[in-house]
Amino acid sequence: MEKSDLRLAPIGVFDSGVGGLTVAREMMRQMPNERIIYFGDTARVPYGSKSRETVTKYSEQIVRFLLEQKVKAIAVACNTASAYALGKLEEETPVPMIGVIKPGARAAVQATRNGKIGVIGTEGTISSGIYPEYIRQLNPQAQVLGRACPLFVPLVEEGLLEDPVTDEIARRYLTELMDEGIDTLILGCTHYPLIRSTIGRVVGDGVTLVNPAYETARELKVMLGEKGLLSEEKPELGGESQYRFYVSDMADKFRRFANGIIKYGILSAKTVHIERY
Amino acid sequence: MEKSDLRLAPIGVFDSGVGGLTVAREMMRQMPNERIIYFGDTARVPYGSKSRETVTKYSEQIVRFLLEQKVKAIAVACNTASAYALGKLEEETPVPMIGVIKPGARAAVQATRNGKIGVIGTEGTISSGIYPEYIRQLNPQAQVLGRACPLFVPLVEEGLLEDPVTDEIARRYLTELMDEGIDTLILGCTHYPLIRSTIGRVVGDGVTLVNPAYETARELKVMLGEKGLLSEEKPELGGESQYRFYVSDMADKFRRFANGIIKYGILSAKTVHIERY
Repeated sequence: MEKSDLRLAPIGVFDSGVGGLTVAREMMRQMPNERIIYFGDTARVPYGSKSRETVTKYSEQIVRFLLEQKVKAIAVACNTASAYALGKLEEETPVPMIGVIKPGARAAVQATRNGKIGVIGTEGTISSGIYPEYIRQLNPQAQVLGRACPLFVPLVEEGLLEDPVTDEIARRYLTELMDEGIDTLILGCTHYPLIRSTIGRVVGDGVTLVNPAYETARELKVMLGEKGLLSEEKPELGGESQYRFYVSDMADKFRRFANGIIKYGILSAKTVHIERY
Repeated sequence: MEKSDLRLAPIGVFDSGVGGLTVAREMMRQMPNERIIYFGDTARVPYGSKSRETVTKYSEQIVRFLLEQKVKAIAVACNTASAYALGKLEEETPVPMIGVIKPGARAAVQATRNGKIGVIGTEGTISSGIYPEYIRQLNPQAQVLGRACPLFVPLVEEGLLEDPVTDEIARRYLTELMDEGIDTLILGCTHYPLIRSTIGRVVGDGVTLVNPAYETARELKVMLGEKGLLSEEKPELGGESQYRFYVSDMADKFRRFANGIIKYGILSAKTVHIERY
């Protein structure tokens, strides 16, 4: 494909479910000329409690599906998949890839004043130790305190974005980090920006919340620009939608949920038999 | 196989994760001579928020795996799989099968005094309407009030069996059913007996809790007896364990959890690539 064609190709984004929509939303805001193909693995959600091997296998299947859609780049909009699988995926994949972890780590190191950074995420992301690793590469003095919050994803997937139960669970998860004196908190799971206001209430104004979704979209834009792959004008679509959504199950439920997050009108979500990839 | 051999064959039991262990535990108690093969689909848990088509496909794969292990009967120890897939599975499968829903419905109809029966379960089980359907076949006057409790499975899978958060969520889910005056409550998900004491505290002594796990084991014993398939003596194992456990992911985590539920000593859990079946 010539570069001028490649510029018009879509960007692929994937997540275990709806959480990655927070990354897709940032990409739409920051790169309004880009076409986006989103895949949510709703038949196998959640990833955060599953093994490295299983999450890698699932991610590889999704990348094969996205490559078949002729994407020019892929954003792994899932912290667990970024933590467990990104290295292997990058080796196997011919298009540029970006995960959500490095951008989040960089933003947190810039934001902290006292060097105490909290990270919340799934069991998989936290136990991988990947956030502390990246953060210490950038600032060896930084103290990184991780906390797995396994119930946040089910709460978000159930739509309890503003709910006293979510408040109660957030208090339980976050108290310990607050007692340790963190001044910066990475929302290390793409579902968490959806309960950002709850988390913000619990930690208070003294703590800066870092949303890797925002940082990832920003870095992806820079990366595409450097490679000459940014679309410079609104794509000609000929009736096709600029944004296409695929899931592995429960397309209607996904579409309803997604329409609450993304204000660009999701006309439809199609079901893909991802196990065949 | 001759009938005398068949009697010594194991019983297959499966669930989306750890919940079906409550059914396996009852089978061990009530049929101490039987060999049991358990499969937990920990790579794809939970089932309760997924579609009929997906849950049926996953269940069919597991049944194929269990038949390869030469089981003499299969217990579908998952309410969602029983609700969505049992009819189809029975048509396709050459060995006797039992689900957890009919036994639970029968026990509830026997237990109620005022005819108001509550059912709690996953989204899939409740929206299928299968409990009300069976209950009204047995007692057309019964009033059945269903409530999906989507967070109970994540809470149990996270091991929060005795926890203030679980109490709080149980109160939220169950208050409405209590206000409606139910006197009987079906624990319509095999995970729920693991938080039976929490649920019991919330609903109080006036409400009879029906545990389909117990009823299912009882009915399975009767069914095997009628077919001449009950093992009449402790199996000769020759070093093999009477109980074998398979999962699709996270075998170590499963084994630790299972050892807290089943007091018969789970030596190991093996990982199966269930997508290949």
